[in-house]
Amino acid sequence: MKELKDYVVTIPDFPEPGIMFRDVTSILADAEGLKLAIDSLQKLLEGIDFDIIAGTESRGFIFGMPLAYNLHKPFVLIRKKGKLPRETVSETYDLEYGQATIEMHTDSVKPGQKVVLVDDLIATGGTIEAAAKMIERLGGEVVKMVFVMELAGLNGRKRLEDKGYSVDSAIIYEGK
Amino acid sequence: MKELKDYVVTIPDFPEPGIMFRDVTSILADAEGLKLAIDSLQKLLEGIDFDIIAGTESRGFIFGMPLAYNLHKPFVLIRKKGKLPRETVSETYDLEYGQATIEMHTDSVKPGQKVVLVDDLIATGGTIEAAAKMIERLGGEVVKMVFVMELAGLNGRKRLEDKGYSVDSAIIYEGK
Repeated sequence: MKELKDYVVTIPDFPEPGIMFRDVTSILADAEGLKLAIDSLQKLLEGIDFDIIAGTESRGFIFGMPLAYNLHKPFVLIRKKGKLPRETVSETYDLEYGQATIEMHTDSVKPGQKVVLVDDLIATGGTIEAAAKMIERLGGEVVKMVFVMELAGLNGRKRLEDKGYSVDSAIIYEGK
Repeated sequence: MKELKDYVVTIPDFPEPGIMFRDVTSILADAEGLKLAIDSLQKLLEGIDFDIIAGTESRGFIFGMPLAYNLHKPFVLIRKKGKLPRETVSETYDLEYGQATIEMHTDSVKPGQKVVLVDDLIATGGTIEAAAKMIERLGGEVVKMVFVMELAGLNGRKRLEDKGYSVDSAIIYEGK
């Protein structure tokens, strides 16, 4: 029987030389791979008490939405700057070259609400940490961060666990 | 009982003056609204024989993925230029000001496969028509286009139906 890992195609040197790109489209291209990805994430959330699922644009939407539907929770979009129509909070964070800004609606998380963050991949953890900061500024609590894939060599998990977050991934790659 | 339409917040003059922005985040912000949106789209697909669900970045991902999971189909990402790692086909289409290019992996649809296209909104229908053209260049057949919302005043449905496509929407707004 195929495991989730077997559905991932790795593309060397994309988008830049030296990067081993783990392609999630190859998981989604097979109905069984897609189901396995969602079911694996859902398993990581078993026994966790939470109110909201939030995902970062745009691959966090892909994996977060079926979880929200299946678990009957609201889904909050964390988007790139300028795409949300109502009042937002924003957070700017460092990339390897330059910076990025993400936003969410100020009314999307209420004080005391427990939030699960979902994304396809954890590398250095910069985006998800910025997302967590925004949620906390709105008074929410990030009770779990789940990822389809983790690049362990980039130490994103350690960075986030050191700050008190609970991190889980369906697939762990040892390298970068 | 609340209908799907009741969950949509309308924001005047976003992103530009004169545009009535229909905000899907307000549907997703309520677990019941989210469920209703997905179930409504799924109902529009009842009795349709198809192989693949495809969605355009990024709100097509939001609504397409739960359908793909529920109906046990593969999901194909139609993305903005430069974001897909493997060999792609692309299609450039006109916007009100300027042009946009979308892409999909060449191996994501095989000749003879039947494809359902999903998006949050049909306005003029330009993006979805470009997506359909790409699918057809790969030998696929677009058997249905479904949308959460339709702005009837912009005549997207007529444009697409005149070209032989079957179009359905969960909510129809008479205006623009």
